[in-house]
Amino acid sequence: MTHAHPIRVYYEDTDLAGIVYYANYLRFIERARTEWVRNLGIDQVALRAEQGIVFAVRRVEADYLAPARFDDELVVRTDVRGVTAARIVLAQDVWRGEQRLFASVVTLVALSDRGVPVRLPPALRGRLMPA
Amino acid sequence: MTHAHPIRVYYEDTDLAGIVYYANYLRFIERARTEWVRNLGIDQVALRAEQGIVFAVRRVEADYLAPARFDDELVVRTDVRGVTAARIVLAQDVWRGEQRLFASVVTLVALSDRGVPVRLPPALRGRLMPA
Amino acid sequence: MTHAHPIRVYYEDTDLAGIVYYANYLRFIERARTEWVRNLGIDQVALRAEQGIVFAVRRVEADYLAPARFDDELVVRTDVRGVTAARIVLAQDVWRGEQRLFASVVTLVALSDRGVPVRLPPALRGRLMPA
Amino acid sequence: MTHAHPIRVYYEDTDLAGIVYYANYLRFIERARTEWVRNLGIDQVALRAEQGIVFAVRRVEADYLAPARFDDELVVRTDVRGVTAARIVLAQDVWRGEQRLFASVVTLVALSDRGVPVRLPPALRGRLMPA
Repeated sequence: MTHAHPIRVYYEDTDLAGIVYYANYLRFIERARTEWVRNLGIDQVALRAEQGIVFAVRRVEADYLAPARFDDELVVRTDVRGVTAARIVLAQDVWRGEQRLFASVVTLVALSDRGVPVRLPPALRGRLMPA
Repeated sequence: MTHAHPIRVYYEDTDLAGIVYYANYLRFIERARTEWVRNLGIDQVALRAEQGIVFAVRRVEADYLAPARFDDELVVRTDVRGVTAARIVLAQDVWRGEQRLFASVVTLVALSDRGVPVRLPPALRGRLMPA
Repeated sequence: MTHAHPIRVYYEDTDLAGIVYYANYLRFIERARTEWVRNLGIDQVALRAEQGIVFAVRRVEADYLAPARFDDELVVRTDVRGVTAARIVLAQDVWRGEQRLFASVVTLVALSDRGVPVRLPPALRGRLMPA
Repeated sequence: MTHAHPIRVYYEDTDLAGIVYYANYLRFIERARTEWVRNLGIDQVALRAEQGIVFAVRRVEADYLAPARFDDELVVRTDVRGVTAARIVLAQDVWRGEQRLFASVVTLVALSDRGVPVRLPPALRGRLMPA
């Protein structure tokens, strides 16, 4: 049930402390969400163009457990924690081999074109829900 | 007691939804922390060179309340929530005028050169603590 | 005639080599262009909303002369090299005190909503041209 | 002889114009350089730790030909244009299918730990040179 997405750490991701800059983990997990959604057969571009729906992050809780470094091969693991009419809660962790470096819980909402929260279309909700 | 740091939103900060990309708020509040620390008379470069101490983010809780847009003038407000021997907890919010767009609680730790948590030097701790 | 825009170097700007990551100079000079345009009394948001015109970078030539570091106070200097019916050529350099760290020549074009190159409106062109 | 590196465009790469932000192409081609160097059997981390040598960008000429968009699958193509005792010149282009979106010529130099230009070790130079 866990979606895994590989990430290589490049120069752009590091800071002068020689480790991955803390904000960049949010970039990593967003890439993983995009791939997870695509993997579920959901086309975000079409969803926006045809139904005027976009996903937006409402809340992030993030724990920085150990630093990632240049050239590391990481894996982002994404699990669905829960899906309600209006919200999706994901656990997204970043691992280097057997070591968990970063742990997060991310709450997503669906928004209309105008930025107003909307209910998830049932078909979409069905795809997002773990079986 | 609150430290305020102004931020202008540029192209680089936005994404295709026309709003500030969610990871970039962590960049904004990190700039504010740097200015807050400088304002307290703490020289991070010297602290690292002379005492081998760096600050690292251990945990972030972030709520995205409303989007910021290109050209917005924002203010990051930083308040000390608590300082212990090894940890600093800050509340850092981003405002546009009277509207709060982003709210966070950030836990910092002090690390040695080797990435090991260390106690805050008392002189440093005194400066960080609200009077 | 030169527009000057100050930049402070933050953690986010550096990489593991301890210096400003090379792509970030393009972010710095783009911030300076935004401020330069605003300073000329041009409202980019209105220009886009009302006339459907956006500026886009067509070409950059960039020389990296010396590295900038964390906490440096830099200045981006922007000079108009030339304005034609469809193009604006700028010289944009980054300085730390008396030392020039970065030199660039940037060619901008005006694009329509659909991404098609358009002629600069004469009123706009007049503002951009050095007297 | 051309090295090809795939890039997926994510939210983080775009700006409010709905296209890839111009500075991010420099991130894309830097990722490709890292993979190209790795592919040649050169370990940048070891090179730095053992010989104190890092590569730095000295000059970039970049032409923006057409915009890339969210979810695009791009390919960075890297070709060696020339290698001298102290410099490496690369052509690095970004393609979407048959369309070239971005073209650049990048000049790299080798630097010592102290940031002083040094000659490329002959063994390294041999690997970088096209046969």
